[in-house]
Amino acid sequence: MKKEFVVIGLGRFGGSIVRELMSLGANVMAIDSMRERVDEYASIATQAVVADTTDESVIKSLGLWNFEHIIVAIGENIQASILTTLILKEHGVPQITVKAQNDYHEKVLRKIGADFVVHPERDMGIRIANNMMSTNVLDYLELSDEYSIMEIKASDKIAGYNLIDLNIRAQYGINIVGIKRGATIIVSPVPQDPILLGDVLLVIGADVDINRFVKKAL
Amino acid sequence: MKKEFVVIGLGRFGGSIVRELMSLGANVMAIDSMRERVDEYASIATQAVVADTTDESVIKSLGLWNFEHIIVAIGENIQASILTTLILKEHGVPQITVKAQNDYHEKVLRKIGADFVVHPERDMGIRIANNMMSTNVLDYLELSDEYSIMEIKASDKIAGYNLIDLNIRAQYGINIVGIKRGATIIVSPVPQDPILLGDVLLVIGADVDINRFVKKAL
Ligand SMILES: Nc1ncnc2c1ncn2[C@@H]1O[C@H](COP(=O)(O)OP(=O)(O)OP(=O)(O)O)[C@@H](O)[C@H]1O
Ligand SMILES: Nc1ncnc2c1ncn2[C@@H]1O[C@H](COP(=O)(O)OP(=O)(O)OP(=O)(O)O)[C@@H](O)[C@H]1O
Ligand SMILES: [Ca+2]
Ligand SMILES: [Ca+2]
Ligand SMILES: [Ca+2]
Ligand SMILES: [Ca+2]
Repeated sequence: MKKEFVVIGLGRFGGSIVRELMSLGANVMAIDSMRERVDEYASIATQAVVADTTDESVIKSLGLWNFEHIIVAIGENIQASILTTLILKEHGVPQITVKAQNDYHEKVLRKIGADFVVHPERDMGIRIANNMMSTNVLDYLELSDEYSIMEIKASDKIAGYNLIDLNIRAQYGINIVGIKRGATIIVSPVPQDPILLGDVLLVIGADVDINRFVKKAL
Repeated sequence: MKKEFVVIGLGRFGGSIVRELMSLGANVMAIDSMRERVDEYASIATQAVVADTTDESVIKSLGLWNFEHIIVAIGENIQASILTTLILKEHGVPQITVKAQNDYHEKVLRKIGADFVVHPERDMGIRIANNMMSTNVLDYLELSDEYSIMEIKASDKIAGYNLIDLNIRAQYGINIVGIKRGATIIVSPVPQDPILLGDVLLVIGADVDINRFVKKAL
């Protein structure tokens, strides 16, 4: 059986969720109160419906509480976002993900039972700021407050050496778990093979240790 | 010397960049045409300035072209975003990151020389859709179109077994490079140690192989 979702609010955030869920093979009902927005998704979503979800009878007639997971991606109209979430939660929808505009909005959403609250602009700002600060760290996955996996571009300081020469685990307490070389991903790097200029090292460890390595070795 | 940035447009996205860059130790000049927005960042940014950056004389008097990296996070007003980028690029600012509202906006920005174009709402929609589709995959770092590092929650099907029992590398061609266990991150998992229920496995490999593992083993 296919996974089924409802996405309410077809702005940039909600619209992107509809497209990606469809491309991943889910069934998606896409809802917006503006006809033009809905028309854009008629050929993309499983079903595209013009509806105002602050109207309880509308939610009822669409049978929205039979869905397991509903995404409320209404933006500027905070009241509509809150009211929609409240009605859905009152009718027992098990999982609701809601886009919040600010901390106050999030607080209200949590009080009325929203299961996941997301801040797309804020979270992407944090990612991009981190990427901009270090020219050698290309991307990262935060594992906890203190640990990450980072993509680190190899400079000419370490190109030509191999993992044994560099002895990174002993010196920094971090591990190289893979190497990106052009379009190739080396999943189990051979310790004897030299690192090439432009290689991207995939490194796991404590942020402080990885940063020590980046500062010293790159 | 501290890294220096200018952020123009203090909405959710631009504001979040200012806060994160400051917390990472950079100097940031924060600019917006609305006084209330600027006031909010007066005590956060290195400098907070009320200015309309579509006015060339303003950009000149602020000396913006002495900066290495400027972020244009103007949203709804696409014309202002384009004009600001154009003026900065004409005056030789080496790195400009611009928030785009849609594909057409991006196309224009690239033509006039924007160095990085970002779609925060769209990109976060893609991330969240992926997270929602698989209840066992908690988060991921995309290494290429076909390879990823994923955080995978261990189910009762594999809890109790160790890495030798599971023989994952031979069976699926993927590697477990770490384990999250509560607040602890195990960076070099010992193959003999059992996996516990609730452990989060950090797995590197081809998406198809990881998904095969997730479907069969979890
Ligand atoms: N009561 C409602 N019922 C259904 N849809 C609604 C309702 N209120 C607002 N919407 C829709 O939600 C969508 C998203 O809202 P809006 O464009 O304000 O968000 P946004 O935060 O600017 O979005 P983004 O930043 O993701 O582009 C809009 O298309 C709007 O028509
Ligand atoms: N010409 C300009 N000069 C300086 N700042 C400007 C100019 N035009 C717009 N801005 C500011 O840019 C900021 C961001 O714009 P806006 O709020 O429309 O974006 P948004 O896409 O809704 O933001 P977000 O989704 O990140 O919250 C606003 O605070 C606005 O005052
Ligand atoms: Ca951190
Ligand atoms: Ca907006
Ligand atoms: Ca937005
Ligand atoms: Ca992919």
